[in-house]
Amino acid sequence: MTETITHPTPLPRLGVTTGDPSGIGPEISLLSAAEAEFSGSCLVLFGDYNMLRDRATAMKLPFRFERVTFEELLSGKPLPPRNILDVPAGETVVGTGSKISGEAAAQNIIKCTEACLRGVLDATVTAPINKKYFQAAGYNFTGHTEFLAYLAKTFYADRKDETPEIAMAFLTDRLKVVLATIHDSMRTVIDAITPELIFRKLSVILTEFPRLGLPCRRVAVAGLNPHAGEDGLMGSEERMNILPGILRARKIFPKAAIEGPLPGDTLFYRAHRGEFDVVLAMYHDQGLAPVKLIGFGESVNVTLGLPVIRTSVDHGTAYKLAGKGIASHESMNSAIRWALRLIGTR
Amino acid sequence: MTETITHPTPLPRLGVTTGDPSGIGPEISLLSAAEAEFSGSCLVLFGDYNMLRDRATAMKLPFRFERVTFEELLSGKPLPPRNILDVPAGETVVGTGSKISGEAAAQNIIKCTEACLRGVLDATVTAPINKKYFQAAGYNFTGHTEFLAYLAKTFYADRKDETPEIAMAFLTDRLKVVLATIHDSMRTVIDAITPELIFRKLSVILTEFPRLGLPCRRVAVAGLNPHAGEDGLMGSEERMNILPGILRARKIFPKAAIEGPLPGDTLFYRAHRGEFDVVLAMYHDQGLAPVKLIGFGESVNVTLGLPVIRTSVDHGTAYKLAGKGIASHESMNSAIRWALRLIGTR
Repeated sequence: MTETITHPTPLPRLGVTTGDPSGIGPEISLLSAAEAEFSGSCLVLFGDYNMLRDRATAMKLPFRFERVTFEELLSGKPLPPRNILDVPAGETVVGTGSKISGEAAAQNIIKCTEACLRGVLDATVTAPINKKYFQAAGYNFTGHTEFLAYLAKTFYADRKDETPEIAMAFLTDRLKVVLATIHDSMRTVIDAITPELIFRKLSVILTEFPRLGLPCRRVAVAGLNPHAGEDGLMGSEERMNILPGILRARKIFPKAAIEGPLPGDTLFYRAHRGEFDVVLAMYHDQGLAPVKLIGFGESVNVTLGLPVIRTSVDHGTAYKLAGKGIASHESMNSAIRWALRLIGTR
Repeated sequence: MTETITHPTPLPRLGVTTGDPSGIGPEISLLSAAEAEFSGSCLVLFGDYNMLRDRATAMKLPFRFERVTFEELLSGKPLPPRNILDVPAGETVVGTGSKISGEAAAQNIIKCTEACLRGVLDATVTAPINKKYFQAAGYNFTGHTEFLAYLAKTFYADRKDETPEIAMAFLTDRLKVVLATIHDSMRTVIDAITPELIFRKLSVILTEFPRLGLPCRRVAVAGLNPHAGEDGLMGSEERMNILPGILRARKIFPKAAIEGPLPGDTLFYRAHRGEFDVVLAMYHDQGLAPVKLIGFGESVNVTLGLPVIRTSVDHGTAYKLAGKGIASHESMNSAIRWALRLIGTR
């Protein structure tokens, strides 16, 4: 009797950057890698091999990983389900960030992003970094998202592609929010909101959401001022900047119902109960306070517009909790779950 | 056998301003007045008697009210449980606001506030007004709260009292929020946030919450910028203005634990799960988006610092729904319930 020999479908490959080694990133990465739920996926953790092993030992966490080199990863050879790509760091201290831990966090991201951009990983999931030590190490970026955009731009510079327009999105089952501005002070936010910005962010939503299999027929744009300016009584940015951006997007994307600018106090309630598929928020706290209020630990941060799928936990390095075995890895599970879901729909 | 004759405890007396007559205010006031839940209270509706009667008839709502004059109200004579204080308005159209409906809304408030300030009502509950028509009628205020503060000031002008410092608070069972600024454009909010403002609003919270029987031991102050400025990386208002105001308040109110400025994205999640008794939010949408997301229709708006207890519905005039019998009076019930609760604790 002859057998049909089938090549197994390769496992989806996720690169997990373990973040700032002094924070909870390494332990939540190790914990999520041990979840049976993800046994059908190939995970490659980016971090210092010895640090990860020591951390696992100290916290009695499982440690069943193969070392993989960058060359092996690029070669596309089959990999076991659990791997570590060693990114040697200097001496780091659990619970206390430093220039060294900031540098290590950056190196993890650089290596993982390169592998993603070269097409040998399907997505990247990122553990938290600490901005202060990231910047102390010489990386003058206000966050992960801005750094990833920079890396993607650098990678593509020789191809003379346009600078990718990126946007930070937060997804929960019932509420999906994209930010028009991210780590800007409120004083700079006000002038950053131009018709061009609104148009570009709407364009990112309306091209990236379908690519990721997410619905985006009903798009709501928040106002900046109380009551969305109430016909100019409390601010003119809605009429002068937000609305013109919406009008331009409506012309280019006639199938989408783009509503706004809508009052920011009731908009998230409305979106959460199902009136809108996605909300474009004008600034960081406007979008994130609602997401965290209803979805803390369940929401995931996705960067739209990168040539790679990236999801992230929705919390910080939590130095105070690091190494104590008390940090929850629920958000990391959620980030991995969403990455797999978004890969599956491509 | 002799009986001890006891004078019955007088019913708590609430003045209900029925709001803009073209909106849903009259019908939700009539509906709530018919609730058995409030049968133990004396309600005085302020509005045009004939309009209210016609509205009740057209919508087949109960209409069992006595007319009461302002003089009778001031005399302190016993009143039946349901009364209307006739505030004649001109011709108004259900569903369409006008200068006339704006004027009527203002007159209801003026009469009711005077009765409260003279001590013959225990509290006022306010149905919605429409700012556009309120202003068209010549009342240059951005909202109810600002108008009430003005009326209270006027009333006390001859007593040379200090201008009352007021603050808008939103209460739900699990989340209580006070606004540092209310109807200011974001551009003006940034400069309005001074150490003096923060101190004054914290003072209002820490004197008014105890007076209303609300706990306020753990007070959280929100930041203005993303991550509360993250040590100045994203804005200096936290260090220059918010923190100095907190430090001053801590000296005057040493028993309160005043924390902040805290990042606005996680603060409301933390307060909602019980970490803080009350949050001082820097601006309208920062405080209201979380309140409405978790408590729409259940939350109540209370003005702190007035010499009168005032609660309000958390929605607008909803002209489109007016007269159709489809508007929910749940928020009005909630506002009455909270007013009675706050009276009871005085």
